[in-house]
Amino acid sequence: VAKRLEKFKTTIFTQMSNLAIKHGAINLGQGFPNFDGPDFVKDAAIQAIIAGNNQYARGYGVPVLNAAIAERFKKDSGIEVDPEKEVTITSGCTEAIAATILGLINPGDEVILFAPFYDSYEATLSMAGAKIKSITLCPPDFAVPLDVLNSAVTKETRAILINTPHNPTGKMLTKNELEFIANLCIENDVLVFTDEVYDKLAFAAEHISIASIPGMRERTVTMNSLGKTFSLTGWKIGWAIAPSHLTWGLRQAHAFLTFATSTPMQWAASVALRAPESYYDELRRDYNAKKAILVDGLKEVGFIVYPSSGTYFVVVDHTPFGFPDDISFCEHLIKEVGVVAIPTSVFYLNPEEGKNLVRFTFCKDEGTLKAAVERMKEKL
Amino acid sequence: VAKRLEKFKTTIFTQMSNLAIKHGAINLGQGFPNFDGPDFVKDAAIQAIIAGNNQYARGYGVPVLNAAIAERFKKDSGIEVDPEKEVTITSGCTEAIAATILGLINPGDEVILFAPFYDSYEATLSMAGAKIKSITLCPPDFAVPLDVLNSAVTKETRAILINTPHNPTGKMLTKNELEFIANLCIENDVLVFTDEVYDKLAFAAEHISIASIPGMRERTVTMNSLGKTFSLTGWKIGWAIAPSHLTWGLRQAHAFLTFATSTPMQWAASVALRAPESYYDELRRDYNAKKAILVDGLKEVGFIVYPSSGTYFVVVDHTPFGFPDDISFCEHLIKEVGVVAIPTSVFYLNPEEGKNLVRFTFCKDEGTLKAAVERMKEKL
Ligand SMILES: CSCCC(=O)C(=O)O
Ligand SMILES: CSCCC(=O)C(=O)O
Repeated sequence: VAKRLEKFKTTIFTQMSNLAIKHGAINLGQGFPNFDGPDFVKDAAIQAIIAGNNQYARGYGVPVLNAAIAERFKKDSGIEVDPEKEVTITSGCTEAIAATILGLINPGDEVILFAPFYDSYEATLSMAGAKIKSITLCPPDFAVPLDVLNSAVTKETRAILINTPHNPTGKMLTKNELEFIANLCIENDVLVFTDEVYDKLAFAAEHISIASIPGMRERTVTMNSLGKTFSLTGWKIGWAIAPSHLTWGLRQAHAFLTFATSTPMQWAASVALRAPESYYDELRRDYNAKKAILVDGLKEVGFIVYPSSGTYFVVVDHTPFGFPDDISFCEHLIKEVGVVAIPTSVFYLNPEEGKNLVRFTFCKDEGTLKAAVERMKEKL
Repeated sequence: VAKRLEKFKTTIFTQMSNLAIKHGAINLGQGFPNFDGPDFVKDAAIQAIIAGNNQYARGYGVPVLNAAIAERFKKDSGIEVDPEKEVTITSGCTEAIAATILGLINPGDEVILFAPFYDSYEATLSMAGAKIKSITLCPPDFAVPLDVLNSAVTKETRAILINTPHNPTGKMLTKNELEFIANLCIENDVLVFTDEVYDKLAFAAEHISIASIPGMRERTVTMNSLGKTFSLTGWKIGWAIAPSHLTWGLRQAHAFLTFATSTPMQWAASVALRAPESYYDELRRDYNAKKAILVDGLKEVGFIVYPSSGTYFVVVDHTPFGFPDDISFCEHLIKEVGVVAIPTSVFYLNPEEGKNLVRFTFCKDEGTLKAAVERMKEKL
C-alpha cells in the first residue's frame, strides 16, 4: 500500500456493517435506510434504461441534471449558478470530496477541518499531501471554538473543510459561526469546501449554505448528493457546485478518477431534484418521528444523549455503562446486545478525544428502531 | 488547479464529443456505441431497482458480482481467484486505474508505460507523484521494442502499465512480448497493472492475460469493465483483480475515492457476466463486420491504415492529405467533412510522436460507418 494511505484501516462503516451481518445484530451503524427510495425516482431510472440512456454521460454531467441541480440550489440558497460551468456531477459526494481535494490542494497546503470528521476527509487530504490542522468540536453542543479557529488560520491556510448538518454529531453550524468562518476566509484568502449532504435533514434550525454569505460564492465548493435525501444511498450520484476557476480544477481530477457517472441514474436524479417541496416536508416529518423514537429510547436506556439538530445521526456518551472506550463499548453492544453503533474515535486525529462517544443512526423503520431500543434496555 | 493536474487539458474525448454535437458531425471519436446494450442486462438492472437493491453496496462489491467476476476470470484466463479477497468493484475501469495507482504507487516511484497511452494513465500517475518512463510503440505493427524496455527497467522501477488489446492502436501484446515483460518483472520485482477492457474484442489473435504467466499472478493487477463488452459504457462498472496484498492497497484508495459503486448496476453486471459464450461470439462477429466496413472504407478514402488486432479502434496515418499534424487534420475533418476522429498526439509524453496518427472507432451501426466513409470520400 502507498504511504499516503498506510495509516488508514478498512473504513469503519464497512467493518461495522460486516459485523452486523456476522452477528445478526440490528445495524444502527452505517447511514443507509432499511427502506426504499420513492417510486417516482425509481421509475425515472427504469425509464432512462429502457429509453437507451446507457452510454457515457458527458464527463461533468448529463445537461438536464446539471440544470436541475442549479435550479435546486437557487431555490434552497438563493444562489444563481451556471449549470454548465459551475456544476459537476460525481460518483457520490465521496468522489466530489476526492475530486475537490485532489484537484485543488497541493502537497504541503494547510487545510483545517473540524473533528469529529467523516473519515474520507482525512484520507483524501492525505492522498493530496495536505497538512491537516484539526479543530475539535466538544459536547454537549459541539460549538466551533471561534478563538481556536481564529488563531489556526494563517497565511499558509489554503482551505477549511466544513460539514453542516454535521456527521456524526448532528451539529448545525449557526449563522454566527458561518459568518465568522466566512470573514476569516475572506480576510485570509482561504477556500471553503462544504459537505451539505444532510441539508434536507435539518430539524432544529434552518440550513444555511456558506456560499450564500456575501463574498463566499467565489471561494466555496458546495458538495451534496442524492442518496440521503432520496433514500437511495446506493445510486452514488453526487455533485460539486463551485465558481468556474475552482470547477476547472475539480473537473480535472474527476475526469481521471471516474471520468463520468452512471448515465441512467443521472437522468433519474434530475427527476428527483424536481420533487415538490411537499416531498421534503414529508421526509423531514418522517425522520423527526424516527428521531424521537431513538432519542427517547437512548435516554431511557441510560445514555447521555447529545442534541442532534440535523442529519440522521445522534451521538451519545456511553460512559454510564462503564466501558473504557468507544471500541470496547461497541464490541460489547454488537456481541452481547445485538446492536451496531459507530465508535467515533476514528473520526479524530487523536482517537482519545472520541473515546466516550458513539454514533447511532435513525434511518431505519420504526420497528427496527424500537427493537434496537428494547435490546439495549434488556441487555445493557 | 493543483500542480499535479496543471498540464492536463479537458480530456480529448470530451472535447471531441462536444465538437461532434456542435458541428453535427458523425462521431467516430469517443468509444461509445450508438446502439444499446442487450435487453437481458437492462432487464436485470430494472429488476434490481424494483427489488429494492438501492442502498450502499459493500465497499468492495456486491458479493454476487465479485463471484461472477472470479468465475469469468477463471473461464477466460484459467486463473482461480478469491472473489472476496482478490476482486474489487470500481466505478468503471477509470476508477480501477486511479485506485490502483493512488493505492500502490508512492511519490518518486518509477512507472513504465507504452505510448500512445490512454490519457488517464499519465494523469493518475501524475496525481500519485510517480516518475513516468514512456516507451513508444511505432507503426506499422506497434511492437514492443524489447531492447528499449529491457534497459528501461531498473531497480527503481515499481510497475509497468500495459493495455492489451491496446487503445488506441488495436495492437495486442503477443505471447512472446508478454513473456518478455513477465520475465523482466519477476527478475526486477516489478508490478504489472494491466488494462484489459477490450479483451472480448480480440479479432486477430487470442487475448492473453499476463497474470496467467507463471510467477505473474502474485504481482499483477488485472483491470476490466462491463461497458465495452456489453455496450453499456454509461453504467460505469469496472473491477480490479489482484492478489490480496495488492488488493488491500487499491481498496484503501477506492474506499476514499468513491466508497462503493452503484448497487443496482452491480446486480445487473453479475447477470451480464454469466452470459453464454455465444453472446461473446456474436459480439465479435458483429464487430468484425463493422470493422471491415470502416477499414475498407478508410483505405478507399486514401489513408494508410494500420492493422488493428483488437479493440473497436483503428489508427491511420493521415499524411496523404497534406495536413501538418493530427490536430489540424481532425479540425478539418470535423468542420469541413463532418466526421470526428481522435488525434493521438495527446497520448504521448512527446506530442510530436503522434502527429501523423488519428484514431477512428467502429463501435457504431453500419449505416453510420458507411455514411462517415461516404463523407470522407466526397470531401477529403
Ligand atoms: C459511505 S458510509 C458514509 C456516510 C454514511 O452514511 C455514514 O456516515 O454512515
Ligand atoms: C472515457 S472515454 C474512454 C475510453 C474510450 O472509450 C475511448 O478511448 O474513446
